[in-house]
Amino acid sequence: MENPQLNQHGELRHLLSIEGLPAGIVRHILDTAESFVAVAEREVKKVPLLRGKAIFNLFFENSTRTRTTFEIAAKRLSADVVNLNIGASSQSKGETLLDTVDNLAAMQADMFIVRHGQSGASHLIARHVAPHIHVINAGDGRHAHPTQGLLDMFTIRRYKQDFTRLRVAIVGDVLHSRVARSEIHALNVLGVPEIRVIAPKTLLPAEVEQMGVHVYHDMIKGLKDVDAVIMLRLQNERMRGALLPSAHEYYKYYGFTKDKLAHAKPDAIVMHPGPMNRGIEIESGVADGGQSVILPQVTFGIAVRMAVMSILAGS
Amino acid sequence: MENPQLNQHGELRHLLSIEGLPAGIVRHILDTAESFVAVAEREVKKVPLLRGKAIFNLFFENSTRTRTTFEIAAKRLSADVVNLNIGASSQSKGETLLDTVDNLAAMQADMFIVRHGQSGASHLIARHVAPHIHVINAGDGRHAHPTQGLLDMFTIRRYKQDFTRLRVAIVGDVLHSRVARSEIHALNVLGVPEIRVIAPKTLLPAEVEQMGVHVYHDMIKGLKDVDAVIMLRLQNERMRGALLPSAHEYYKYYGFTKDKLAHAKPDAIVMHPGPMNRGIEIESGVADGGQSVILPQVTFGIAVRMAVMSILAGS
Amino acid sequence: MENPQLNQHGELRHLLSIEGLPAGIVRHILDTAESFVAVAEREVKKVPLLRGKAIFNLFFENSTRTRTTFEIAAKRLSADVVNLNIGASSQSKGETLLDTVDNLAAMQADMFIVRHGQSGASHLIARHVAPHIHVINAGDGRHAHPTQGLLDMFTIRRYKQDFTRLRVAIVGDVLHSRVARSEIHALNVLGVPEIRVIAPKTLLPAEVEQMGVHVYHDMIKGLKDVDAVIMLRLQNERMRGALLPSAHEYYKYYGFTKDKLAHAKPDAIVMHPGPMNRGIEIESGVADGGQSVILPQVTFGIAVRMAVMSILAGS
Repeated sequence: MENPQLNQHGELRHLLSIEGLPAGIVRHILDTAESFVAVAEREVKKVPLLRGKAIFNLFFENSTRTRTTFEIAAKRLSADVVNLNIGASSQSKGETLLDTVDNLAAMQADMFIVRHGQSGASHLIARHVAPHIHVINAGDGRHAHPTQGLLDMFTIRRYKQDFTRLRVAIVGDVLHSRVARSEIHALNVLGVPEIRVIAPKTLLPAEVEQMGVHVYHDMIKGLKDVDAVIMLRLQNERMRGALLPSAHEYYKYYGFTKDKLAHAKPDAIVMHPGPMNRGIEIESGVADGGQSVILPQVTFGIAVRMAVMSILAGS
Repeated sequence: MENPQLNQHGELRHLLSIEGLPAGIVRHILDTAESFVAVAEREVKKVPLLRGKAIFNLFFENSTRTRTTFEIAAKRLSADVVNLNIGASSQSKGETLLDTVDNLAAMQADMFIVRHGQSGASHLIARHVAPHIHVINAGDGRHAHPTQGLLDMFTIRRYKQDFTRLRVAIVGDVLHSRVARSEIHALNVLGVPEIRVIAPKTLLPAEVEQMGVHVYHDMIKGLKDVDAVIMLRLQNERMRGALLPSAHEYYKYYGFTKDKLAHAKPDAIVMHPGPMNRGIEIESGVADGGQSVILPQVTFGIAVRMAVMSILAGS
Repeated sequence: MENPQLNQHGELRHLLSIEGLPAGIVRHILDTAESFVAVAEREVKKVPLLRGKAIFNLFFENSTRTRTTFEIAAKRLSADVVNLNIGASSQSKGETLLDTVDNLAAMQADMFIVRHGQSGASHLIARHVAPHIHVINAGDGRHAHPTQGLLDMFTIRRYKQDFTRLRVAIVGDVLHSRVARSEIHALNVLGVPEIRVIAPKTLLPAEVEQMGVHVYHDMIKGLKDVDAVIMLRLQNERMRGALLPSAHEYYKYYGFTKDKLAHAKPDAIVMHPGPMNRGIEIESGVADGGQSVILPQVTFGIAVRMAVMSILAGS
């Protein structure tokens, strides 16, 4: 089957999920992002690469944080950015998703950044648009959030260099997490030999071992000698549901405390996609501690998004 | 009576409605728009004509789509755009419309794009502001939506060249449509010899023939040998009201199907201002068919808005 | 105690309140603003001083008007502006204020413009951020709104030149007004010899005389021979509360009418921070009369905000 993310020359045309991306392209994104980290440290944090391009932040689901990172990345590339909170507009007037997209495309859009509550929405859009338009998935349902996955890989590479000697643990609500899915694909494609997921059974998908991960229900065993820990956000609505007994119980077993961190390697890094629930999935001592690279993740996230946008615009 | 849209040299000062615009000015806008169609096809879709100008999108009524088209047009002209959703702010603090406008004018606004639920709101603002400030009506109540009317004229001219030999039909809820009003004025001023409106009696204004149109209640007769069909959007709230028996009944008589289209000239073009209600006022086969120019309308809409803004700023 | 607004060289690092600002810095801001008034009158209203800087409008409390003035000021300085209405986003996801700030700082923010319902919020943020990040308080609870205070000083200086010979009256709800607090500090620091506050007892803070003001409950006596009158906005919610008998009663005693204005000096200027409640705290004849400088205040407000931003960015 044709890969909708690549053009006929095997170049990146859309970024929809890390699944299906060749390792070469993942590495090319990470390498390109290195140069943009330097741009952000300059006095004038702008490059003219996307001047005159029209980028639409098409958010069918509200996410100020993610929208802002793409908006900043696009502005640093000198693009014109239009923010559309679609939930509140045309959709309510009965227009179909693809009619909305066609309309914006007719305004000479060059790129769509799409956030949608339904898995597959950005694939649908990518398959529909004209060849010169590029789509970036900024999170679709439970499916994927590839730029988050990529910025996590960038962060791991910055601190650990060689992926092929690492043990990485992902902790928390893997079942509902598009971030976890993107990370597992990315770690696999980059050759990480041991990927662990740590969670209660109720927060793991049925087929999770088939994704190439080792399952742990005991956090202390799961963290043993790992090089990197990726915490997942526990969504409030899960805590009141049938899947978890209580926030208190969860924290006791899966809350990331300094005691538990002591079981990882002494130089292990701590990651979290944010926003954090302090005292629910992570202790402040860990979140703000010397091993935390949570804020560098945010900084690298801008550089990775600039890299993806500039690679797409150049293809 | 003085025409508030023109300055003492007869140049365009505000665009409030097509009614009252001399044919020469309408043609000048359409001619200017031609050059901006080319800009949108360039690699860098920007011209510096309005650099350093402050344009305010003053939307008292929410319309993401219309606001976006003006925002893109202004950014392509290199203006600084500020989006104000006024419904949610000062108005609720008891400030009058003209105090809000005075305040924004004191921030050295150069242009206001005004959308308001009440007919005449942009006239009121245009009459109030200082001579160097320009106002564009982006839709006021049931009164007018002149840039929509102009982009439709641009579209017709692109496909049919000579207005003076055309038969044009406008179909649907003329009664509640500011778009229809603007179109009828535009078609008249450009010399279209036969303008038809097709609608049930309950969706036509009482005095409609006095606007220079022929009324048809039978869509098949009304479409006979026309060169262009302009569909109107049927607002959901009408369908549940006293004016229409049911959406199903409406579709049977006034829904635009391929069968009905067959009665128009073989090269007739199909237009719709969007957003479309597929299966309510228009069949997908027509909307997406070879005679549809609905998406080019959107593209031309940006060029027409760039033309209006640049002409106003230059006057 | 260290002054969090100044760096070790005594330069402005943050603008949090006028209280604690040396007179030299206040005058430097006003002088710098003079040059920006000229920029706003140019054909191209832009200077490249903040090109490539990222300025975040961090509004935890909605205020379209104030946000717009900062957005325009930043755009005229060529900065990239990101508007964040935080009330509606991460905060609702359980993230703490400082985590939100840390995240935005990690996106390489250069400046935060902060509006918050709680007094002290911008101080908290200023104390927390890295040394290269600057914070401007755009209104925090009942505490301060320093750029409003500064623009009022700029306006007084423009019309009255020498502060050391003036009598200035502030009229209205001083108790709930952060603007009044900022103005009293500013007038004191600039050497105004006689500052009056005019209000019913219920709308005055207990310790108000200790701020260096003379209290009047009778508006006619209070306005006698003043050079400038600063009206305060009467918030609707006060009028229904226990603090005021009725809007009608209030207007009778404290509404600013032409009759009352006649008791001030013949060349006294009339100021109001907006939005005005016409017929509640001010008569239209006064608001729109020849002594009103309410709209010039708005114009000068942009210049003053440009001055503060450029001074901060240069420090």
